[in-house]
Amino acid sequence: MKLIRFGEPGKEKPGIELDCGKKIDASKFGGDYNEEFFANDGLKKLEIWLNRNANESPIIPENSRIASPVCRPSKLICVGLNYAKHAEESGAEVPKEPVLFFKATTAITGPFDEVVIPKGSEKTDWEVELAIVIGKKASYVSKEDASDHIAGYLLHNDVSERAYQIEQGGQWCKGKGCDTFAPLGPYMVTKDEVKDPNNLRLWLDLNGERLQDSTTSDFIFKVEEVVSYISQFMTLLPGDIISTGTPAGVGLGFKPPRYLKPGDVMELGIDGLGTSKQTAVAYK
Amino acid sequence: MKLIRFGEPGKEKPGIELDCGKKIDASKFGGDYNEEFFANDGLKKLEIWLNRNANESPIIPENSRIASPVCRPSKLICVGLNYAKHAEESGAEVPKEPVLFFKATTAITGPFDEVVIPKGSEKTDWEVELAIVIGKKASYVSKEDASDHIAGYLLHNDVSERAYQIEQGGQWCKGKGCDTFAPLGPYMVTKDEVKDPNNLRLWLDLNGERLQDSTTSDFIFKVEEVVSYISQFMTLLPGDIISTGTPAGVGLGFKPPRYLKPGDVMELGIDGLGTSKQTAVAYK
Repeated sequence: MKLIRFGEPGKEKPGIELDCGKKIDASKFGGDYNEEFFANDGLKKLEIWLNRNANESPIIPENSRIASPVCRPSKLICVGLNYAKHAEESGAEVPKEPVLFFKATTAITGPFDEVVIPKGSEKTDWEVELAIVIGKKASYVSKEDASDHIAGYLLHNDVSERAYQIEQGGQWCKGKGCDTFAPLGPYMVTKDEVKDPNNLRLWLDLNGERLQDSTTSDFIFKVEEVVSYISQFMTLLPGDIISTGTPAGVGLGFKPPRYLKPGDVMELGIDGLGTSKQTAVAYK
Repeated sequence: MKLIRFGEPGKEKPGIELDCGKKIDASKFGGDYNEEFFANDGLKKLEIWLNRNANESPIIPENSRIASPVCRPSKLICVGLNYAKHAEESGAEVPKEPVLFFKATTAITGPFDEVVIPKGSEKTDWEVELAIVIGKKASYVSKEDASDHIAGYLLHNDVSERAYQIEQGGQWCKGKGCDTFAPLGPYMVTKDEVKDPNNLRLWLDLNGERLQDSTTSDFIFKVEEVVSYISQFMTLLPGDIISTGTPAGVGLGFKPPRYLKPGDVMELGIDGLGTSKQTAVAYK
């Protein structure tokens, strides 16, 4: 299944994108795609509901805003430097164990929403990433069992302000959690429809120019390792999102570096997980 | 007012601790102390409700578990190294601007709950801290206006695993967000009852021995500066919690360092914000 959410910010409703491309309103299923949904076998129940109701459910109006496919999670946790070439372009060593950081969940936005360049920012950058949605509570989970705790996958643009992240002292979170810095979606694809998450092509175009083009087969730490690793440090809750890092081709890596200006358009995608598109705008 | 919550994990109810020390059940007020509560003028409404219902409300049973005084926030964000002497004992420079990091909100636990030393951990440490509860959405707020966005204050033990935090690569969040690493409370005191948050004595005893003893007048960055500063990087939501850093006297600062062993008892307090007490236990 492909889970979507639609509607204006704060008023999102759940929906499903069918294989034929039709997008149906799933409000009548009851409840949103949140921690409770994933914890209570929501995916199975939704599938049963879908089989019974696909034909009678209203189609989502064409001009609807598409939102993040899952509700605000308890955690949006990211792996840094998970592709060797990106570690190199960032001037960092290839990590011996996953580098972790949090993005504020207030950064989450829809896949076609505008990305707001923060006030005075001159170093706002892009990062196409594969993100994992947790389906079942995970604490001290082994690599072998990790997959049981995954609900599905989605596309994430881990937008990052490099001056805030690197030059303003301390930890990375200052440059990672600005409002609109986490466009998620267009949809969450359930894991049964993703043949191998560790072998997916992913790419990002800036104003039509391909700047990131790689595959998750270049991961330093694979999806299962990442879930297992994080669960050694904290409990992952149903609905939590883990972003697995970005490949080479971010603005920081160019000489001289290239950063977003108002009007710039980012378009990004992952095989089987759809594409998203955001225009950068100045803070108003 | 002093807001409390009580009941077993996952089944907490709201309550109020009266000035006479009596703890009353406020379930009938309707709703828990969460984002919605703070966003919709919940504190004012609760005060009106309290004036009418204080005498008729049931008393909380003596043996009730006391929980975190506020629900799981969207963010639990912390300031690192906000006391000059603690920066020194940690071998870090006094920061020029606030160092920020996130604790996973799954770390939140009650003020008298056990603190679980993670599997194999040898460097679990204590940190008494003053925490701020946000009352009103804050984005690009000035220092002068910051106080308008604060609902109240509470006591926090920012429990930290130093090997995970410092030795295992990357960012601090690995050692900050383990389950039970954020005992909050005993209560949230509304800001009208806290004369000067930048001049409160705070202390922590380990097994009866005073190890931290300082005052928030030693802050490098005051409460209002901290709220204003963070709001330049991300929107703070009602109910979000900001912890303002710890003074000298943590285990890491001793020569040789001292860390928690199962059975160790931490007792901590802040003037006017009550005391909390946690026993360290091994992971079971």
